[in-house]
This record gives sequence, structure tokens and C-alpha cells, in this order.
Amino acid sequence: MREFDIITKLLKPISGRDSVGLSDDCAFFDGYCITKDILVAGVHFFENDAPYNLARKALRVNLSDLASSGAKPFGFMLGLALPKNTTQKWFEGFTSGLKADIAEFKFQMLGGDTVFHDGALTISVTAIGKTPKPITRSGAKLGDNIFVSGAIGGGYLGLKRKAQFIEKYELPEPRIKLGLKLRKIANSCIDISDGLLADLNHICEESKVSAEIFSNQIPLADPNYDLIEQISGGDDYELLFTSPKETVKNCYKIGKILTGSGILLDGKKIKPKGYEHGK
Amino acid sequence: MREFDIITKLLKPISGRDSVGLSDDCAFFDGYCITKDILVAGVHFFENDAPYNLARKALRVNLSDLASSGAKPFGFMLGLALPKNTTQKWFEGFTSGLKADIAEFKFQMLGGDTVFHDGALTISVTAIGKTPKPITRSGAKLGDNIFVSGAIGGGYLGLKRKAQFIEKYELPEPRIKLGLKLRKIANSCIDISDGLLADLNHICEESKVSAEIFSNQIPLADPNYDLIEQISGGDDYELLFTSPKETVKNCYKIGKILTGSGILLDGKKIKPKGYEHGK
Repeated sequence: MREFDIITKLLKPISGRDSVGLSDDCAFFDGYCITKDILVAGVHFFENDAPYNLARKALRVNLSDLASSGAKPFGFMLGLALPKNTTQKWFEGFTSGLKADIAEFKFQMLGGDTVFHDGALTISVTAIGKTPKPITRSGAKLGDNIFVSGAIGGGYLGLKRKAQFIEKYELPEPRIKLGLKLRKIANSCIDISDGLLADLNHICEESKVSAEIFSNQIPLADPNYDLIEQISGGDDYELLFTSPKETVKNCYKIGKILTGSGILLDGKKIKPKGYEHGK
Repeated sequence: MREFDIITKLLKPISGRDSVGLSDDCAFFDGYCITKDILVAGVHFFENDAPYNLARKALRVNLSDLASSGAKPFGFMLGLALPKNTTQKWFEGFTSGLKADIAEFKFQMLGGDTVFHDGALTISVTAIGKTPKPITRSGAKLGDNIFVSGAIGGGYLGLKRKAQFIEKYELPEPRIKLGLKLRKIANSCIDISDGLLADLNHICEESKVSAEIFSNQIPLADPNYDLIEQISGGDDYELLFTSPKETVKNCYKIGKILTGSGILLDGKKIKPKGYEHGK
């Protein structure tokens, strides 16, 4: 079974009224926005990644989900399944990383659970944000322009261990401030974790529209590296959003929302092949 | 490092204002109560436990935390790290279990995350409840009577594979209704997951009091089995609470809150040795 099948065939039918049918990374209730991302050693990060950065990445992939909803960070629950040989030094590094990002993003640790086991390090963060009116994937409108908040493909190249992109992969920058600004101007938004094409496709499917994008407008992390790989790779954690605006400061317009379904790249249909962690 | 050291030495100093210093299973904000429990195969359950019951147990240990705070179930986030060979049949059983308890406890699934990995099944549930005024571990008052909501030791005997207690171990009964009733009458409350003695000790430490309990008043799951083992074993998921009331319907009075610190069993000091999962 693939993650996609599990979600659509088995979990979606039993999801609750506030879950938005599991179509978003976040669920929304009472002015709050909640999301959860699990990271597993060997799947989402390398076993020997520095614990300081690892703690921050675990928070940041969740903060990025909050950013995509236009939410302000409120607090998080931390779940840790630790290998039995975890050292105090490792855990001190991990705690310092948490502390740094708690301060940077005005976040707070609410609680959690810690267990020891025989397996690999597993970090499960549930993050809560506040937003009076969430931005979702399903609001894209015909004629909206499509924007991204930064270079695409850096997360993928970092995963491939290209030296200058390792930091981008290990320590993504959640676009919290931009997310707050988007509350007023974006009709739809998602953070790019599965890859630009796959995440744009999520917006199209949930909004029941199609998208046309242009390769010469996409800001690539490495313009000399293959375009399709970079727009199919995951872990960029830039925001991808649609808005009737013609320009958005510090963001790149890469295309337009049209009727129909699917994605056109330079006028040709392209099947989005997203990055699936652990495959 | 032990879980206790990690929490008190490293995590407590960086915990947030709504975390109650990580002293409770739940954190509280804005009328909501939030808790998280991770269950790992081989640590908290047996690899071949039926998926239907496993899903329910994962929800119920969290529902039990909500019950101990006097909260009404609201919703949960489900995190799953699944072995790559998980079958559709297994997952259908798991989903049916979720569905059953969503209905039974008027709960809702808000969202979550699913990943595949090489390790053992890991289930991370974050549960949210609603309560206008949470009951905590720290409110026990001098002269309060100490109560438990049911037989003690059944979870432990089930873990030991004693046939008639396996269901108690696999499918604990969260005392949600009692928790709601306790809002009006209890000064402190905890659910018994680490063992009666260890959890009573948590109340004493957080409330800065001592407790005297009497062995002939403790309702044992198996009166012919060793008392100390049964009151030191985990996984009962009964509520342990203190109240000025002399009697509480369907609950057992087992002792009294006194000044000082520590626990007296039949007049003698006893060092609480709780059950630590995975040790």
C-alpha cells in the first residue's frame, strides 16, 4: 500500500468534520490550525545529521505547514522514539536546537512523550498555530497568478549531498512572515514538500482547476541542473500560492490558473511525479 | 539517559508557559487540553496484536489522559510509522478500530502523517479535549480521600499474558464519564499508566503532600497474586484521584492525603517502583 492509497481509501472516509477531508496539511478549529509531521532516520534525514539541526528541521517542516495556512506559531507537542544508545550529549544538542527555534519563531513546547526502542530515531511533532481565516489548497481561482517564494530544487540537491545545498535540505526556512501577509492576498497556498509539480497538482485537484507554468520563469536552485528533477524533488519548503495580484514582493510569478485539470509546462501537459519519502 | 532525566533536566527548562512545566500528561490552553502518547511495537504492545484493538488502544491511552484532566474528547492527530510490508488487510483492521472508537467516544480524526520505514510499527497520537477548568496532579489537599476507579493490576497481569486479563491490557477503558463528573469533586487526578504507587507518587510530588494507603482497601485484579507487583505494574488506565468526599459512586477509597512527602502503605514507608515501558 502507498501512503496516498491509505489516506484516500481508508483514512479519508473516517476523517472528522474539522479535518477538511484530510485534503490539507492542516486541520482547522476555533481559530486554531493543527498539523503533524513524522520524521524517521534513514527516510527523512541521515542517521548522523547533527542533532541541533535535526531538532530544528523537525520543528520547521511543521512550521512550514503553519506558514502555508497563514497561521502564526502557537505551540507544539514533541514525540520521540529514541534508540536505546542515545547519549546525553546528543540529547543536549537536540534540546539546544529546539530552544533556538522556539526563540526564533516565538513558539512554545506544550508537552509530549519520549520512549526508548530498538529502532531508528523517530521524531513526531504536532504543531498548532493561530489564524482567524486559514488559507487552504482549495481556493485557487480562474485567472489567479501562480507564485513561489524562492528557489526550487535546493532541497532535492541537498538530499543528493550537493555541498552548497546541504544547509537548505537540513535547515529549511519556514515562510511564516510571508504566510501572514498572504492571508490578505492569496486564494490558495501550499508548502513545497513533495516537489513543485506534485504540490501544484494538489492545489489544482483540490481547487478543481488547471495550471500553466513556464520553465523560464521558475527560479531554479541550480540553473545548470536538470529542470524536471528540480521541480519534481521534495523538501524545498518554499510557499507555492495563487493570487489575483500581478506581483508579490520577493516572490516569483511562474504561471497562471486556468480551467480544466492538470498542469501545462511551456504549453505541454506534464504528469507530476512527486517525491515520495522512503520509496 | 532515562526518560525521567530527559524530561526533568533537558526538556523542562525549555517548556512553554502553557505546558504546566511538563508536570501533567496534558497541557492546557484556551479551554483545550492536549496530550500525546507514542506506542511502539515490542515496547507497548506485541507485534502480532490484532490491528483492530491496537488502533483502539492507541486512542484509548490518550483518551485516558483526557479523562484524568476532566476533559471531553474533541479530536486527534494520527502519526504512523509503518513497516514497509504492512498489508492492506492489516490497515483495514486498524481503520475499523479507529472508526469504532471515534463513534464510541464521540471523537474525530483531524489529520496526521503516515510514513513507511524499515523499523517496527510506531503509533503517535496527539489528542485534544475540551475542559473549562482542568483537573491536574498538583491540586491534592491535606485531608483529601484517595480513590481509584477500578481494579488495580489487571493491565500488568495482561502484559504477563494471564488469559483473563489480556483484554484489560489490550483494550483499556478510558474513564471519560467519570472524568467529567470529577470536575466538580476532585482536587487532583491522574490516570494509572505507570502503576498505582508511581502515579500516586506523581500526585504527592506535584501537590507537595504525602499519602497513606491501605492494602485491604485496594481493589486488586487478582487478590491471590502479589500485591506489590500489582500496585507497581502499569497499564491499568483507571483514574486515581483525591477528593474531600467520603464516597464516590463506583469508586474505591484507598487512603488519605497527609502532610510531608512519600507514601505509607499500611503505616510503613514504601518506595514507589513504577513500571517503565521498554526497560
